[in-house]
Amino acid sequence: MKTSEIQEILVSHTNGKISTDEATAKLKNLSYEDIGYARVDHARAGRQGFPEVIFGQGKTREQILGIFECLVARTPNVLITHTTANIFGEIRNVYTESEWHDSAKLIRVWRDKTELGVGEIAVVTAGTSDIPIAEEAALTAETMGNRVKRIWDAGVAVIHRILVERETLQNSRVVVVVAGMEGALPSVVGGLVKVPVIAVPTSIGYGASFNGLAALLGMLNSCASNVTVVNIDNGFGAGFVASLINRRWEDKTV
Amino acid sequence: MKTSEIQEILVSHTNGKISTDEATAKLKNLSYEDIGYARVDHARAGRQGFPEVIFGQGKTREQILGIFECLVARTPNVLITHTTANIFGEIRNVYTESEWHDSAKLIRVWRDKTELGVGEIAVVTAGTSDIPIAEEAALTAETMGNRVKRIWDAGVAVIHRILVERETLQNSRVVVVVAGMEGALPSVVGGLVKVPVIAVPTSIGYGASFNGLAALLGMLNSCASNVTVVNIDNGFGAGFVASLINRRWEDKTV
Amino acid sequence: MKTSEIQEILVSHTNGKISTDEATAKLKNLSYEDIGYARVDHARAGRQGFPEVIFGQGKTREQILGIFECLVARTPNVLITHTTANIFGEIRNVYTESEWHDSAKLIRVWRDKTELGVGEIAVVTAGTSDIPIAEEAALTAETMGNRVKRIWDAGVAVIHRILVERETLQNSRVVVVVAGMEGALPSVVGGLVKVPVIAVPTSIGYGASFNGLAALLGMLNSCASNVTVVNIDNGFGAGFVASLINRRWEDKTV
Amino acid sequence: MKTSEIQEILVSHTNGKISTDEATAKLKNLSYEDIGYARVDHARAGRQGFPEVIFGQGKTREQILGIFECLVARTPNVLITHTTANIFGEIRNVYTESEWHDSAKLIRVWRDKTELGVGEIAVVTAGTSDIPIAEEAALTAETMGNRVKRIWDAGVAVIHRILVERETLQNSRVVVVVAGMEGALPSVVGGLVKVPVIAVPTSIGYGASFNGLAALLGMLNSCASNVTVVNIDNGFGAGFVASLINRRWEDKTV
Amino acid sequence: MKTSEIQEILVSHTNGKISTDEATAKLKNLSYEDIGYARVDHARAGRQGFPEVIFGQGKTREQILGIFECLVARTPNVLITHTTANIFGEIRNVYTESEWHDSAKLIRVWRDKTELGVGEIAVVTAGTSDIPIAEEAALTAETMGNRVKRIWDAGVAVIHRILVERETLQNSRVVVVVAGMEGALPSVVGGLVKVPVIAVPTSIGYGASFNGLAALLGMLNSCASNVTVVNIDNGFGAGFVASLINRRWEDKTV
Amino acid sequence: MKTSEIQEILVSHTNGKISTDEATAKLKNLSYEDIGYARVDHARAGRQGFPEVIFGQGKTREQILGIFECLVARTPNVLITHTTANIFGEIRNVYTESEWHDSAKLIRVWRDKTELGVGEIAVVTAGTSDIPIAEEAALTAETMGNRVKRIWDAGVAVIHRILVERETLQNSRVVVVVAGMEGALPSVVGGLVKVPVIAVPTSIGYGASFNGLAALLGMLNSCASNVTVVNIDNGFGAGFVASLINRRWEDKTV
Amino acid sequence: MKTSEIQEILVSHTNGKISTDEATAKLKNLSYEDIGYARVDHARAGRQGFPEVIFGQGKTREQILGIFECLVARTPNVLITHTTANIFGEIRNVYTESEWHDSAKLIRVWRDKTELGVGEIAVVTAGTSDIPIAEEAALTAETMGNRVKRIWDAGVAVIHRILVERETLQNSRVVVVVAGMEGALPSVVGGLVKVPVIAVPTSIGYGASFNGLAALLGMLNSCASNVTVVNIDNGFGAGFVASLINRRWEDKTV
Amino acid sequence: MKTSEIQEILVSHTNGKISTDEATAKLKNLSYEDIGYARVDHARAGRQGFPEVIFGQGKTREQILGIFECLVARTPNVLITHTTANIFGEIRNVYTESEWHDSAKLIRVWRDKTELGVGEIAVVTAGTSDIPIAEEAALTAETMGNRVKRIWDAGVAVIHRILVERETLQNSRVVVVVAGMEGALPSVVGGLVKVPVIAVPTSIGYGASFNGLAALLGMLNSCASNVTVVNIDNGFGAGFVASLINRRWEDKTV
Repeated sequence: MKTSEIQEILVSHTNGKISTDEATAKLKNLSYEDIGYARVDHARAGRQGFPEVIFGQGKTREQILGIFECLVARTPNVLITHTTANIFGEIRNVYTESEWHDSAKLIRVWRDKTELGVGEIAVVTAGTSDIPIAEEAALTAETMGNRVKRIWDAGVAVIHRILVERETLQNSRVVVVVAGMEGALPSVVGGLVKVPVIAVPTSIGYGASFNGLAALLGMLNSCASNVTVVNIDNGFGAGFVASLINRRWEDKTV
Repeated sequence: MKTSEIQEILVSHTNGKISTDEATAKLKNLSYEDIGYARVDHARAGRQGFPEVIFGQGKTREQILGIFECLVARTPNVLITHTTANIFGEIRNVYTESEWHDSAKLIRVWRDKTELGVGEIAVVTAGTSDIPIAEEAALTAETMGNRVKRIWDAGVAVIHRILVERETLQNSRVVVVVAGMEGALPSVVGGLVKVPVIAVPTSIGYGASFNGLAALLGMLNSCASNVTVVNIDNGFGAGFVASLINRRWEDKTV
Repeated sequence: MKTSEIQEILVSHTNGKISTDEATAKLKNLSYEDIGYARVDHARAGRQGFPEVIFGQGKTREQILGIFECLVARTPNVLITHTTANIFGEIRNVYTESEWHDSAKLIRVWRDKTELGVGEIAVVTAGTSDIPIAEEAALTAETMGNRVKRIWDAGVAVIHRILVERETLQNSRVVVVVAGMEGALPSVVGGLVKVPVIAVPTSIGYGASFNGLAALLGMLNSCASNVTVVNIDNGFGAGFVASLINRRWEDKTV
Repeated sequence: MKTSEIQEILVSHTNGKISTDEATAKLKNLSYEDIGYARVDHARAGRQGFPEVIFGQGKTREQILGIFECLVARTPNVLITHTTANIFGEIRNVYTESEWHDSAKLIRVWRDKTELGVGEIAVVTAGTSDIPIAEEAALTAETMGNRVKRIWDAGVAVIHRILVERETLQNSRVVVVVAGMEGALPSVVGGLVKVPVIAVPTSIGYGASFNGLAALLGMLNSCASNVTVVNIDNGFGAGFVASLINRRWEDKTV
Repeated sequence: MKTSEIQEILVSHTNGKISTDEATAKLKNLSYEDIGYARVDHARAGRQGFPEVIFGQGKTREQILGIFECLVARTPNVLITHTTANIFGEIRNVYTESEWHDSAKLIRVWRDKTELGVGEIAVVTAGTSDIPIAEEAALTAETMGNRVKRIWDAGVAVIHRILVERETLQNSRVVVVVAGMEGALPSVVGGLVKVPVIAVPTSIGYGASFNGLAALLGMLNSCASNVTVVNIDNGFGAGFVASLINRRWEDKTV
Repeated sequence: MKTSEIQEILVSHTNGKISTDEATAKLKNLSYEDIGYARVDHARAGRQGFPEVIFGQGKTREQILGIFECLVARTPNVLITHTTANIFGEIRNVYTESEWHDSAKLIRVWRDKTELGVGEIAVVTAGTSDIPIAEEAALTAETMGNRVKRIWDAGVAVIHRILVERETLQNSRVVVVVAGMEGALPSVVGGLVKVPVIAVPTSIGYGASFNGLAALLGMLNSCASNVTVVNIDNGFGAGFVASLINRRWEDKTV
Repeated sequence: MKTSEIQEILVSHTNGKISTDEATAKLKNLSYEDIGYARVDHARAGRQGFPEVIFGQGKTREQILGIFECLVARTPNVLITHTTANIFGEIRNVYTESEWHDSAKLIRVWRDKTELGVGEIAVVTAGTSDIPIAEEAALTAETMGNRVKRIWDAGVAVIHRILVERETLQNSRVVVVVAGMEGALPSVVGGLVKVPVIAVPTSIGYGASFNGLAALLGMLNSCASNVTVVNIDNGFGAGFVASLINRRWEDKTV
Repeated sequence: MKTSEIQEILVSHTNGKISTDEATAKLKNLSYEDIGYARVDHARAGRQGFPEVIFGQGKTREQILGIFECLVARTPNVLITHTTANIFGEIRNVYTESEWHDSAKLIRVWRDKTELGVGEIAVVTAGTSDIPIAEEAALTAETMGNRVKRIWDAGVAVIHRILVERETLQNSRVVVVVAGMEGALPSVVGGLVKVPVIAVPTSIGYGASFNGLAALLGMLNSCASNVTVVNIDNGFGAGFVASLINRRWEDKTV
């Protein structure tokens, strides 16, 4: 909630336009809709610039559908991440223009395609197996109004694969780097550009990768100062933050 | 190195203005100065918008002094992090206007104070004990040309301590949140603002905090989508990335 | 066994009413029934205020049924946790009024519904996916004679979702908080109330949540002093302890 | 803050008794005092039944003294935990009747000795080396108005050492069990009593105790259902929660 | 190989009874049979008092059958551990008197039932779910010529369940204690007896048991001095060492 | 790319034989072929002496086939590791002389069988269950032009099984040792030979082997100075490095 | 306490020779002496064949002295482990014939030197640095009445160092093996003998030895079936259990 | 011991030139010298091409001196690693031409400087702080008869620092790469050369580097196939293996 909204409620209350109970109710109900198993946060668009996203894993079919119906009625763009083709079958019944993205295991409703970003976001993977996570990041950024440049399979063991992309990287406003195994690519990319690099460790690898722990630790210890890290396999989070960094802020203060 | 620089060297070489050996040398020497135990990276300012910072820990007194002399001669602002008052005693002999920041254990040379940021950077701590790391972040951001707002001791166990700062937070272009123990503050702050939040876990705590591991894992698993994470106690990194996000880019592409 | 029971046996033995062997046997057999693969603890109701609960995981179908038959014959209320709908099919054959709770994967026999608690127990979840574990806690507390207030999906990233429940929380005698991912909610709730908070980490999350480790560590390091923690996904334990705290003790000493 | 306080402010504001700015200020300043490096929480006594405690570790001498002065002026009882005899030397200059507890490394101001508990709290240690942590728990509980029974060195390897204390344990309203090494004592005590057991793992041990990790994991996995756990070496937290459980609540709802 | 065997070969070689090549071959082939994918160790009975046991997991069906055939032809008793009912179907075709032990997932050929032990071995479990691992220990010890006393479901949370078995335990020559979760039982048993206790952690538990890690660490840190530990779920190893301790040694030196 | 190649391009460019754009393109395209989801590295044979190998895990069927087609058209020998019999069904359609190695789960195209090694490579396993990983190492080394000696099931618990192989080991140019469980074999082998030993931990084991972690740590801490380690289950990597060590280098410098 | 003792008390009570209170007191006080901070267990000698040992670490000087005085007055042999030369200075004042063992950091009172063992105990180290822990084991075993054979620096990287000791090992009744780094020696020794091997991991090593974790895991996963493990650096425990195994039991049942 | 040596002893024994006892003694004593606390391995030079090295850490001053005296009398070159300047003071008294290398904390006796290597060994560090470990590797390799090329401070965040060294790297026979923090450099170097790369993780870093764990895991998961890994900070091991790979083998078989 913005300060102005609160002030408005206070003023209405003072003027006697609304009762104390009404003021309380407004403050409580303004921001989310309670559907029993979930409190759907309609105010998030105002607060964070994008509606709530449904994280599919760990929720029942009924819960996902219920939250989706609730969101699709009020907001132009909706994402469901970490979901399945089966769920998509049912989502399509609710809203026929939903899209299924198989690699990223993601459902999207994309009705508002306004471009909101200042520059371009580059999304890079170290290997072919990292593409699904990178697609999640790229689709998130696109849906949030950004132009995205995809660079796949540019891991450090063949260093010229990333060096030939130097210009593309240097023309981006923010770079998302997705890598499993030793997670070394963000450090190299970080050294090539002067913009923030968001590193996404993936669970790709075997043995002592410990499901992404090796890549995660590597990225956290990056010797490049412009690298920050999100959770293992969290392509959505990386795409989300990249969008915020690239956002063309219209009001003065922010 | 920019593409244009390389093209210039190629053209000079083609025109016979410089020999093949000279071209090779240029490509090699342009970017750093080799002083034996270190390759000081004078090109970093061009590449990343800030000169190399000296990470004090693990280096000998001689090495720190040598690198410092090398940097202070060519760049207006220099930072030495993770260092000691003893080292400062010697640095001051090299350059008398160096500053010692006791809380952050940081030495600073701050000659160019041009403001480069778009908005303001908020730096928040959960507790009093997190202040040294937060100061490292704040000093880094200031030295890189940003206005910084400090908010100390606003941890979640007394939730109104952070809620009263909501407006300050919402007027910032990026927020750095520094917390030890359970590391919960970034999630709460993340939900209050629509800008990126950079979370810095600290090693403050005891027992099952395992020197910051608890805070680190908490932040990586934040349910707020706009949170990214840097290494434990890495105040410098957080201040650096916050500065890049807040940077007023002058050229069109970036 | 109560001290008085032991004294009674000693006195009977002294008076010659029972032989030394009989005294021994009494002391041995009073408290549990040995059915081969299990020693069913009928004395627990006296000792802890509730009959033994069957933890379903890792036991064979025959073992669960055998222990259940043994318990249902002597005690009004019985719980089987971490079990399956298939097991329920067979349990219903033994005692037709058993209930199946699908979300919590729990079987209940609830014949004695006497209210035993002083006040109300609040059970809160951070997210929708945490509901199954929270239901296990709520059902346990209800079956042990408590009024329970359920508050679902009130995680910290949208802080007003929990703040609007402040009064409900402050009217409870004890609060159970169930959360996965970063496990931050108990710290916030802990700061809002003056009663004990029992935190239940869940294995909800992915990547660096490491099956609940992140939430567990977060809760153990809570900066709120009124928080204690149970095992990951241990809804039963939380409901059990909450019931003991809320218990209306009738004898003077306790 | 209680709902009634907020309502009072809202009503005053509506009646024009206070301006919008004043209302804002009230809401901000009511609950804590900002002294720069710390926001001292004077409202905690109302909210949690005990004033803020100063956790000494990680704070500078000046910070501890500053917070102490701030608290000792407004509240009868104050604790400083994880501190040193040197700090005590200075604290005594501020308030001469402060007490130094060497085993627990704790400073106490104990002016209000009103008894607030319903019953007695038992504090038990497995070994002699666990006494300092147990003393921290016992002193906390005493200062919060409880009668405390200390039982030292009753670890499970000589099982009758704890069995002879059965009656004392069964006459307590809550039991705190402090143990290092394998942390088995809470499970045994848990089985002997029908009240809540708060388990405190200590860092006592060597080798594969990994500074208390073994005890912590053991306690979290306790087969006794009435055991909850606090952080390694967190005697204060255990004493605090035990006090809340034992609290004689005066108002009806709680 | 015994020293005497080597000396015999040396003497035969010196006497010219066997050539240098023959001596080499004897030394090589005496002790095992090479069947390609395995070197079956027929000398182990002499060296360790029991023939090689087949660890089923990770071997193909063909490999298990091949090694079994090789062993069953030369030694009276054979065990296959960590195997399946399917494998048993085929083993029975090779040797019809093989036994299948479903709980322990173990195949046994038991032709030589000579009693070799001095006293009795007690095998104890903390819970019902630990029985499969305990059965593996008990069957191993029986097959190695020992009388075994089984005590199931005697975990510490109901302490009299183990105390009533005190005499049985104190009459044993060695005790095997099998426990999951917090693994506290070996410490209690260790304090009750004056013989060695072999502790077997099991992977029974959930959440922070981390597949037996909690129990393992608990047992390694046991405050009872007579406890040693084997690998998680290693019932076979515990039964094997218990048999060696209980062995009636016939020759003087050992 | 070799220095001479770059110099050649520079000279051609200087002579005007190729334009600046062409030079750029050459430098970019020389070394790999971009097929969308992968950048196939045809230059690796020149750079490392062997074409790119396809790591099957984590790639889709289409991706594996696409990369395989791309490689098999330009290079005589190709390996696909960590793959399945199903994938082999399709690979055989592309190139009928592909081989399926069931134990190692590896597909091979072996057209160039030139011997390239100086001496022989020994591949040793501790147990029967380690054979699949060892086969991956052996097949890799053979395909890279080496004679390989396989020694299976020679673990340290029957020490003469490895001692009888001493001469074979001492006649090798490099030894690969594959072991799970405690991973002790490399230390023993390391002490027997004067050549490098490459240790491969396997995930064979149970309980506290933690999927190969125990073996990995054991090998990293080997008291034999000639041991280096690769990732858990990384038979391919061990065979690859062994081949490089054994390579008959033809040019003088290397 | 033995069953006969309890029966005797019961009979005395029945006969009226002792009152109920006296019976209670007897049961409580028989077995230990309560000196405030410790409950000294004088019954342990009867129960376990050796008086309580003082584990020095984590106890204050006063506590160690107090417990020592209590023990030295009633039992011929006393050990203080993990202690310091300073403590010895004071212990010597209490009992002048105390011995200081510098390598093991152990104080011993050895007045009863009766030989109690059946055979000999071998104590072996992998390296020179493991000797202090091994000495603790050896001194414990000697003090408990055993002949001990020391074998130092026989690690597996020079395999004949342990092989030449084969006969000594095979003539022992039990073998204690002390090793740091990769902890491989117990597996090799285990394969050479037919008696139990007690493995003691030490914290000797660096890097990925993680203070003994590597050795501990290695030993727990030993492929030799006759190996059990004690805590890292727990030489005392190993010597204690070895003594129990080697004990010449005089009564029939045990 | 070589096969021929054993055969010679067997033949002498057969011919009656030596008795059975003498043969036994020869086999036992040939290879090492027992000085009580250590078995100095004089045969290692024959077996591994270099005399035993003294690992200083964990040994007493007397032990280091004793072993040194023993070695310096029989072998031209000796190394003492992980030692101190104080120990050097005493070593110099034993042998005045010993050298002290302060950065590597290493003592060297270098009398035989014969060049034994085929090519050159490159030793590379990622940062200035990694130099001490790298020096240990370089000194070891030099002392074992190799030409060494040092390349300091060439970490991946400024990628051209390593790219300008490409030719030097490609002219080496083996490359040692020493890196802390994220440990990414070996992957990049591995991709540049066709020879084996030995990666040495260092404990340089802070926070989530966990004393070198991050670098270790990164290197084990390297996407470059020619990388093998040694223990954290094990510069000696890397230099040793690099020397073996570069060794000019003179006999045919090896």
